[in-house]
Amino acid sequence: MEYSFGDLVDLDKIQGLAESFYRLTGIPPSITDVEGNVLVKVGWQRICTEFHRKHPQTLERCVQSDTELAKQLNGKTGYASYKCLNGLVDMAAPIIIGERHVANLFAGQFFLDPPDREFFRKQAATFGFDETEYLQAVDRVPVLSRERLELGMNFLTALASLLGEMGLNQKELSELNLHLEAKVRERTLRLEHEMEERKKAEAEKIRAGKLQGVLEMAGAAAHEFSQPLQTLSFDVDFLQGQLGDNDKEVGEALQSMRDNVTALSRLINKVQNITTYEVAEYSDDLQIIDLDKASQN
Amino acid sequence: MEYSFGDLVDLDKIQGLAESFYRLTGIPPSITDVEGNVLVKVGWQRICTEFHRKHPQTLERCVQSDTELAKQLNGKTGYASYKCLNGLVDMAAPIIIGERHVANLFAGQFFLDPPDREFFRKQAATFGFDETEYLQAVDRVPVLSRERLELGMNFLTALASLLGEMGLNQKELSELNLHLEAKVRERTLRLEHEMEERKKAEAEKIRAGKLQGVLEMAGAAAHEFSQPLQTLSFDVDFLQGQLGDNDKEVGEALQSMRDNVTALSRLINKVQNITTYEVAEYSDDLQIIDLDKASQN
Repeated sequence: MEYSFGDLVDLDKIQGLAESFYRLTGIPPSITDVEGNVLVKVGWQRICTEFHRKHPQTLERCVQSDTELAKQLNGKTGYASYKCLNGLVDMAAPIIIGERHVANLFAGQFFLDPPDREFFRKQAATFGFDETEYLQAVDRVPVLSRERLELGMNFLTALASLLGEMGLNQKELSELNLHLEAKVRERTLRLEHEMEERKKAEAEKIRAGKLQGVLEMAGAAAHEFSQPLQTLSFDVDFLQGQLGDNDKEVGEALQSMRDNVTALSRLINKVQNITTYEVAEYSDDLQIIDLDKASQN
Repeated sequence: MEYSFGDLVDLDKIQGLAESFYRLTGIPPSITDVEGNVLVKVGWQRICTEFHRKHPQTLERCVQSDTELAKQLNGKTGYASYKCLNGLVDMAAPIIIGERHVANLFAGQFFLDPPDREFFRKQAATFGFDETEYLQAVDRVPVLSRERLELGMNFLTALASLLGEMGLNQKELSELNLHLEAKVRERTLRLEHEMEERKKAEAEKIRAGKLQGVLEMAGAAAHEFSQPLQTLSFDVDFLQGQLGDNDKEVGEALQSMRDNVTALSRLINKVQNITTYEVAEYSDDLQIIDLDKASQN
């Protein structure tokens, strides 16, 4: 799963907490992502914003210093402190969430010892800063003990880690939820499909069953009726041979028998050649097979 | 959804953060649930643990003071400060998560002004505390400005709220997960049931279809065969009446016809009385209706 620190926590709330923390402790926390983009920024010193970051040469030193400090964090779990090329101190620690280095925490700028005013006076001259205003900015930079800063960094890294881990857990749960929701949808669709298929299949099965029943019944009829019909046919042949046309009424009766035996044979023939299921209405609540339509002949 | 603060956050981690916060700021945070059970406890003063909470009368005052302070929090969103009956100051704020008052945050004990040693000397005498040791304990209680404490409480309540809200979100996501998992299980079971039902239904539909097909075919056979058979029967009657027993062979042929017409009529009768689907093997790959078994007669 890909994630940045900003995906895991509410950065506006973290910004508010960082401001509150700065007012309470005098330690200004900032957070950047691993590419150096600022996510949370508190209490940047006037000496940085109004002087060092405004002059191209001192700005170049700021960037170099930031890069150097970030480099020191790679693969580390503790924190690093660094005296920047413009003479201030910064402290940084990696924020590791789910074994992933997602951001860097900075606490700076400050001095660990009272500043060397001579150094800064010279620096003002070198870069053409207004000496009075520049030294006022130097005086506003807090002087913090290393012990106090380490306590601050301990607290801040533990807090960032707790917030990040909770955020990661939320993110994992959210993704699991999406996955489960998709699964519910998939199961629901399959269920609907199955129910539709069932209806279709039922109609098909009834139809298939009907044809099978028709064919089996037709087979039985052909089987059972054929033999008696054949005997009848022989008997009619015999009687017609024996009796000839001597008696008109007898001759007509024999011809009627011949016609009916032939009609029955043709019916049996149709029954034997049924290939499809075709019905005709017989009465209001009864339908029967339409032999002509159902039979191939 | 029911929840306590301990359901939402990792109390061990909060305890670690509180200790780290106390070392950094000198402000000792504690958290109790709304029933007063201690969840997180940091930096309790020796004057409380070794003196006030050991003597029954001063302990009684502690409990009264705690109750009074907690009462001040009910329905409030800000914080309350309270000078306890034993002379120390405590500050408290409700922790509201998801519009629910789940816990109270305390920062204490401390003094807002340098302590009145005379008051504590008298208190030592009243309750028989060792004066030197008691006054040493008094001296160890931090003196914190109201402004600093308010900054501390602001930070701590914002933090407790953020952690609690994240925890609540986690909890809601977890419950949604459980709900979704149950839904997936329910849908899966219904799907399996539907598939089984489909198989059963298909078998039933085939069987129903077969019977219907048989009955429709039987109806057709009875309908088509009856009329020619009846005519045959009349013709046989007529010829038997006309020809009598004059000629033995003719008589036998007529009797054979009578027998076969009767046989066919009986078959039609059976066909008309089919009520169930019963088959017999006819050849290797063909089965036909068993008229005797299928017919009610």
